[in-house]
Amino acid sequence: MQKHIDKAKILVETLPYLRSFRNKIVVIKYGGSAMLNETLKKQVVQDISFMKMAGIFPVIVHGGGPEINNFLNKIQKKSEFVEGLRVTDEETMEVVEMTLSGKINKEISANLQNQGLNAVGISGKDGNLLIAKKKFINGQDVGFIGEVETVNTELIEILIEKDFIPVISPVAREMEGNSYNINADYAASAIAGALKAEKLIFLTDIEGLLKDVNDPSSLISRISVSEAQKLIDDKTISGGMIPKIDCCMEAVKKGVSAVHILDGRIEHSLLLDIFTDKGFGTLVYNDN
Amino acid sequence: MQKHIDKAKILVETLPYLRSFRNKIVVIKYGGSAMLNETLKKQVVQDISFMKMAGIFPVIVHGGGPEINNFLNKIQKKSEFVEGLRVTDEETMEVVEMTLSGKINKEISANLQNQGLNAVGISGKDGNLLIAKKKFINGQDVGFIGEVETVNTELIEILIEKDFIPVISPVAREMEGNSYNINADYAASAIAGALKAEKLIFLTDIEGLLKDVNDPSSLISRISVSEAQKLIDDKTISGGMIPKIDCCMEAVKKGVSAVHILDGRIEHSLLLDIFTDKGFGTLVYNDN
Amino acid sequence: MQKHIDKAKILVETLPYLRSFRNKIVVIKYGGSAMLNETLKKQVVQDISFMKMAGIFPVIVHGGGPEINNFLNKIQKKSEFVEGLRVTDEETMEVVEMTLSGKINKEISANLQNQGLNAVGISGKDGNLLIAKKKFINGQDVGFIGEVETVNTELIEILIEKDFIPVISPVAREMEGNSYNINADYAASAIAGALKAEKLIFLTDIEGLLKDVNDPSSLISRISVSEAQKLIDDKTISGGMIPKIDCCMEAVKKGVSAVHILDGRIEHSLLLDIFTDKGFGTLVYNDN
Amino acid sequence: MQKHIDKAKILVETLPYLRSFRNKIVVIKYGGSAMLNETLKKQVVQDISFMKMAGIFPVIVHGGGPEINNFLNKIQKKSEFVEGLRVTDEETMEVVEMTLSGKINKEISANLQNQGLNAVGISGKDGNLLIAKKKFINGQDVGFIGEVETVNTELIEILIEKDFIPVISPVAREMEGNSYNINADYAASAIAGALKAEKLIFLTDIEGLLKDVNDPSSLISRISVSEAQKLIDDKTISGGMIPKIDCCMEAVKKGVSAVHILDGRIEHSLLLDIFTDKGFGTLVYNDN
Amino acid sequence: MQKHIDKAKILVETLPYLRSFRNKIVVIKYGGSAMLNETLKKQVVQDISFMKMAGIFPVIVHGGGPEINNFLNKIQKKSEFVEGLRVTDEETMEVVEMTLSGKINKEISANLQNQGLNAVGISGKDGNLLIAKKKFINGQDVGFIGEVETVNTELIEILIEKDFIPVISPVAREMEGNSYNINADYAASAIAGALKAEKLIFLTDIEGLLKDVNDPSSLISRISVSEAQKLIDDKTISGGMIPKIDCCMEAVKKGVSAVHILDGRIEHSLLLDIFTDKGFGTLVYNDN
Amino acid sequence: MQKHIDKAKILVETLPYLRSFRNKIVVIKYGGSAMLNETLKKQVVQDISFMKMAGIFPVIVHGGGPEINNFLNKIQKKSEFVEGLRVTDEETMEVVEMTLSGKINKEISANLQNQGLNAVGISGKDGNLLIAKKKFINGQDVGFIGEVETVNTELIEILIEKDFIPVISPVAREMEGNSYNINADYAASAIAGALKAEKLIFLTDIEGLLKDVNDPSSLISRISVSEAQKLIDDKTISGGMIPKIDCCMEAVKKGVSAVHILDGRIEHSLLLDIFTDKGFGTLVYNDN
Repeated sequence: MQKHIDKAKILVETLPYLRSFRNKIVVIKYGGSAMLNETLKKQVVQDISFMKMAGIFPVIVHGGGPEINNFLNKIQKKSEFVEGLRVTDEETMEVVEMTLSGKINKEISANLQNQGLNAVGISGKDGNLLIAKKKFINGQDVGFIGEVETVNTELIEILIEKDFIPVISPVAREMEGNSYNINADYAASAIAGALKAEKLIFLTDIEGLLKDVNDPSSLISRISVSEAQKLIDDKTISGGMIPKIDCCMEAVKKGVSAVHILDGRIEHSLLLDIFTDKGFGTLVYNDN
Repeated sequence: MQKHIDKAKILVETLPYLRSFRNKIVVIKYGGSAMLNETLKKQVVQDISFMKMAGIFPVIVHGGGPEINNFLNKIQKKSEFVEGLRVTDEETMEVVEMTLSGKINKEISANLQNQGLNAVGISGKDGNLLIAKKKFINGQDVGFIGEVETVNTELIEILIEKDFIPVISPVAREMEGNSYNINADYAASAIAGALKAEKLIFLTDIEGLLKDVNDPSSLISRISVSEAQKLIDDKTISGGMIPKIDCCMEAVKKGVSAVHILDGRIEHSLLLDIFTDKGFGTLVYNDN
Repeated sequence: MQKHIDKAKILVETLPYLRSFRNKIVVIKYGGSAMLNETLKKQVVQDISFMKMAGIFPVIVHGGGPEINNFLNKIQKKSEFVEGLRVTDEETMEVVEMTLSGKINKEISANLQNQGLNAVGISGKDGNLLIAKKKFINGQDVGFIGEVETVNTELIEILIEKDFIPVISPVAREMEGNSYNINADYAASAIAGALKAEKLIFLTDIEGLLKDVNDPSSLISRISVSEAQKLIDDKTISGGMIPKIDCCMEAVKKGVSAVHILDGRIEHSLLLDIFTDKGFGTLVYNDN
Repeated sequence: MQKHIDKAKILVETLPYLRSFRNKIVVIKYGGSAMLNETLKKQVVQDISFMKMAGIFPVIVHGGGPEINNFLNKIQKKSEFVEGLRVTDEETMEVVEMTLSGKINKEISANLQNQGLNAVGISGKDGNLLIAKKKFINGQDVGFIGEVETVNTELIEILIEKDFIPVISPVAREMEGNSYNINADYAASAIAGALKAEKLIFLTDIEGLLKDVNDPSSLISRISVSEAQKLIDDKTISGGMIPKIDCCMEAVKKGVSAVHILDGRIEHSLLLDIFTDKGFGTLVYNDN
Repeated sequence: MQKHIDKAKILVETLPYLRSFRNKIVVIKYGGSAMLNETLKKQVVQDISFMKMAGIFPVIVHGGGPEINNFLNKIQKKSEFVEGLRVTDEETMEVVEMTLSGKINKEISANLQNQGLNAVGISGKDGNLLIAKKKFINGQDVGFIGEVETVNTELIEILIEKDFIPVISPVAREMEGNSYNINADYAASAIAGALKAEKLIFLTDIEGLLKDVNDPSSLISRISVSEAQKLIDDKTISGGMIPKIDCCMEAVKKGVSAVHILDGRIEHSLLLDIFTDKGFGTLVYNDN
Repeated sequence: MQKHIDKAKILVETLPYLRSFRNKIVVIKYGGSAMLNETLKKQVVQDISFMKMAGIFPVIVHGGGPEINNFLNKIQKKSEFVEGLRVTDEETMEVVEMTLSGKINKEISANLQNQGLNAVGISGKDGNLLIAKKKFINGQDVGFIGEVETVNTELIEILIEKDFIPVISPVAREMEGNSYNINADYAASAIAGALKAEKLIFLTDIEGLLKDVNDPSSLISRISVSEAQKLIDDKTISGGMIPKIDCCMEAVKKGVSAVHILDGRIEHSLLLDIFTDKGFGTLVYNDN
């Protein structure tokens, strides 16, 4: 009996967190190991289920991961690279979209439904959700890679109101009709900003924001937008960390209350982040 | 970290229970030790808070306990007894109502609000909730003791819809205007039946339904309405157990899916009952 | 027949008043003789019934009157006094709350229901209606006597919208959980102000605002907030009249269109005030 | 003061009537002297105003009275008669419709608005309200005189819900597009039946249903549908009384709770009928 | 088959127009030949039907045309004239109102209903739609001729929302209760302005705004409010053109996006104007 | 000008069709040449746009066509065949789903949005729309080919109500979590039946139902369900025609008013079918 009572006590400990997130939107950028490892995958679904049942409105934006490469290999597509970024020609874009919107998106939607939830997989091309324009990398045309111009949240808001969990693949429509691949971090940031979400969580494969990418002990636990800007300006942060922190800052500036970079390799990291006082990863917040 | 992950796993274990009780009404008859012991009192409030946050609609019906006697002693009121039941004259009824509706009711309402919930304390006399008629004990008039004639759930349903927790004291209005004290078990049973509640829970000071009142090992874990009727008919159950099981049967017959007699002396008994598979107490169910 | 036609003509005379109060909130501070005298009590209920039927939304805030003293006497409680005000220790507060919220409040609610209306008795402790803080009298701690800090009208507005008459006892919750007794005049004033009521009526045992408390002929029929302030400043008004007029001024400043001090000893004073051009009592209005 | 208190008492006497008619539809067939005499006209408007303010939903169906003849005379139209009924050729119908829908209808609507009410004058041709077919009198074609085939209450219900008083002229559209004059009594009866009105009142120039048309003392105060049928069958009632009672019976059969034939020549007859226990005129009720 | 495909192509050509007028209000001043010629009458009804079916919200304001004279002749009413304007005494006003509100209004409403639409004929006197004051012509009293003081669009908005087409006759109520005839052009302009309509169309018997009234080739296709003012100021436009262009300018100033003067003698002019790029008539637009 | 008037007349000719399909659901099975030929593709989008603008609620269910084969070829997947049906192993199913839900579905959704409409591409796996079970072909397991067990229309109904056009790919979830390919004809039939659609249209590459598949002149224009059953029973219809007519019969039996087999190779076939009286293809209707 005591074992059960102890469990009940753990439930009761979540009360302050339940109270503060009730009826709030939490956008989750889902990617990395948490999308590959079968145990973690299952736990992410459970965590999102618990969040939904506990009165939170989760919105999922997913990335593509290695699946895209797998398919490009299958069709023996050779790619050119510009500054380490794959040039996305029409054939590549086709595979990218099919994998994102036709495979990964539907799998996440189905896994959530298997837990008894009501989920809907859409892409940024549906319901005028994401309108993009071509993105140039240092002035170079790298094909169908875009950046978000406008976000129309009507469809997401309807789905939330009607008790569905929206699962969104980061593909956008351009006004002329072409499809563009959007970096999933930026898509999540733009969507969270437009929704004025309570929280945006990046499920990543890093411990959080590191001063020194190679030194886990250099983790920054909390950082304000202006502090982050300073770290970028004085080049303390550099390399792959810059787009990540840039996304966080964008979202905070657009009105998201808090942005978290979490280590998705830790079990139940979503629940840990929301329902315990176990701080881990990095919190980016506004200080204006 | 592992400790926190283990906690998250416990949250996740509640998923099947969260799913089945989401948006369902659970009526709780609140009384006994759980209303006296300070630790238990606090836990009941936490448990109800967790239920509410987790999407359940709790409705509280409380009893009076020793407070009524305390006040009768304070005013040095001597009482007559009929078949062990206190004759409730006008002066007694005044004290009963003041204690139930003015003290206990408001205290429970306030305790829930202190947890950040929205609670409203009403009595069965408000909003035409309970209409009563005089109850005779073996043909004898024992004063202002009544039984429920009609339940009008409109006010409760509005409060539930608007996100309030109704806390109800078992006092009813008679059509001619008098006030009547209603046995809290019967009041809870009538209200749960009228609401077609998913569950009715009696928080008691017993282990559950016992074949032999003096032998805790004679606990009946599950019993159907017709089995219960047989135990009454062949006098296996007797004495104080009879009104208790009678209340349960009434509620089940009126459409409550399941009625539980719980031992409120156990810590977090409400959460244990709803969110774990730890069966304890007695479940009464319909077998028609 | 002519007698009946004359009655119809009287109904028709109310048309201009019906038009101006349709769908408006009128807060009534109910106290004094109108709460003691059986004839007056019955008439107040009739008057409120007529108001409700005629499309007005009445909200009742009641006081305690001599009932509280009766109960303190019954339990032989001796009280200390500071500046003529009873020091409200915990035991006293318990009796105050039980009497206000458990006896008087429920009686008024029941009387209105007996007239076929839908009434709900709540206290300021329910639905986060009134949040209080301790009130010091000239720097002295007089126990559980509080003043209103915030009014949350959500519950009242829901009840009004759903066709119920709210009946409110002047007890408030403090953030730390204690209960405080609020002067009923101030409670009514704060509630009327928060509701932006069309009218606030004080049912009193005086003719209205008197320049000389002992001289009924010194009645002031209409007075603006700034005129009233002048009378206070130059000490024309003094003594017990000051808190009364202070309440009126508070309400007007918060947005109540008109505040009336009525003589509740006059039969049907509520109907007279609202549905006839028979001016009596004192009207306080805004002149900013 | 006493005079005013007495008035308040008269208001209070209406409470039981206010309660029983609250949110109920009352259809009034408006015609006869009450539409001609200036004093009565003004009183009818006041009475309807009071009804509306007191929570009743009045629906007015008016007749044409002598105005139609005035206009036919003005244009020097000679009419043929069949069984005492004017043959309504196209030119006559034009005058009938213009008078009913363009003059009387708009005047009643305007008079109600002048009392501060929101009224809308429509004809049975608007919003598909009344669909008619040609009526033959003993097999003879008498022109554009019709009887109601179907009533579509949607427009009336919208107007009632939005707080307007519908004022209806008894002209109907035939499916082929022609306009037909409908006897106003039958139009009111059909509309009241389709609305399942609480009450249908005929404002007439007679005392009520008379056994002997020439003897006012032969007034029948209450009569059931089957009793009325018997009086028709055994020819106790005859002549002009027959269509009147027939209308009443039709309405009752279609679900109107009570139909009253009132003497509209009495001042404030509408208020007398609804808000006093002064029985006058004839009540027709269902006895099935 | 090809013939049918060609028709489908014509439907498809309307897509851009359908998109821009979807859920927009278009006020149509209906008068002139389009109200007299049987073929044109039928086409106007068809055009309005198509507009309604295609998602536009049409609102009709009609004039009176020769019908009023016919009736004045029928009753042998002689009229006096002031500056070419008929002096409208009480008897004349009666005929005007009966013709407008009782004949023409109901005929248009019925014709639309015969096409399967839901139409409601009201006058500006209903639902407090138009409140007028007396209009003096160069200081002279010409009787019951008024100008619009206030427009209350509530009734029209309810009818639109509930899927009805409002048909409005240009008669207004004065606060004292008199009826006034309003020039239909000005009534349409005031109503369109109050509704912030997308478009106001005048169906006239002229080609549009002509610099020289006698020279159709002097048609102005597009003109801004300030250009129009200049043409008035320098007397390029004069005579009967002035009130017409004045109405247009009024409406544009009050927020109507575009005002069209159309030649209603052209078949299907309404559809031509809205659903093709065939520009004809005059467009008045805002240039501020 | 006359050319434009003639166009307006063509618009007006659609009125009876607009009336009968207003606010009705039309399910379109989109496949065949109309999905391949660029001109036809563009016309289908225009036709659906016109339908939507004209007040119809279109729901699109699409097939896969040669795209699936293209991708299987690209990855050099060899397939086994059973009774002419490709055995769908896991790798094949992956390609099928990616092509249907990730490529074709999103392209249709985007094309509709490019016309200014609000469209959302979902698969039968979203929102619990289609639940499937494995389909055996003559007892043989052919892999992930399924048949519809239950249709949950909630998501579609929400999208329709909120003004979106649902575009659905025929992939379903099995309760255990696997994905199944559903024949698009059967998916459309099941969805139309569950929605009680007014019409189900199959856009095919045949003239309609042919008695002799090789003889276009054997086209059946109208056929009832029982006549169709007879043709199947006596083997008049055979081969590939049987599943087609079976789908039609299924839909009609479940409550679709009319099912049309159209020749999608004809330009604007959708508009021709709905907005003209040009009968072509085959109509299947209910005769019970």
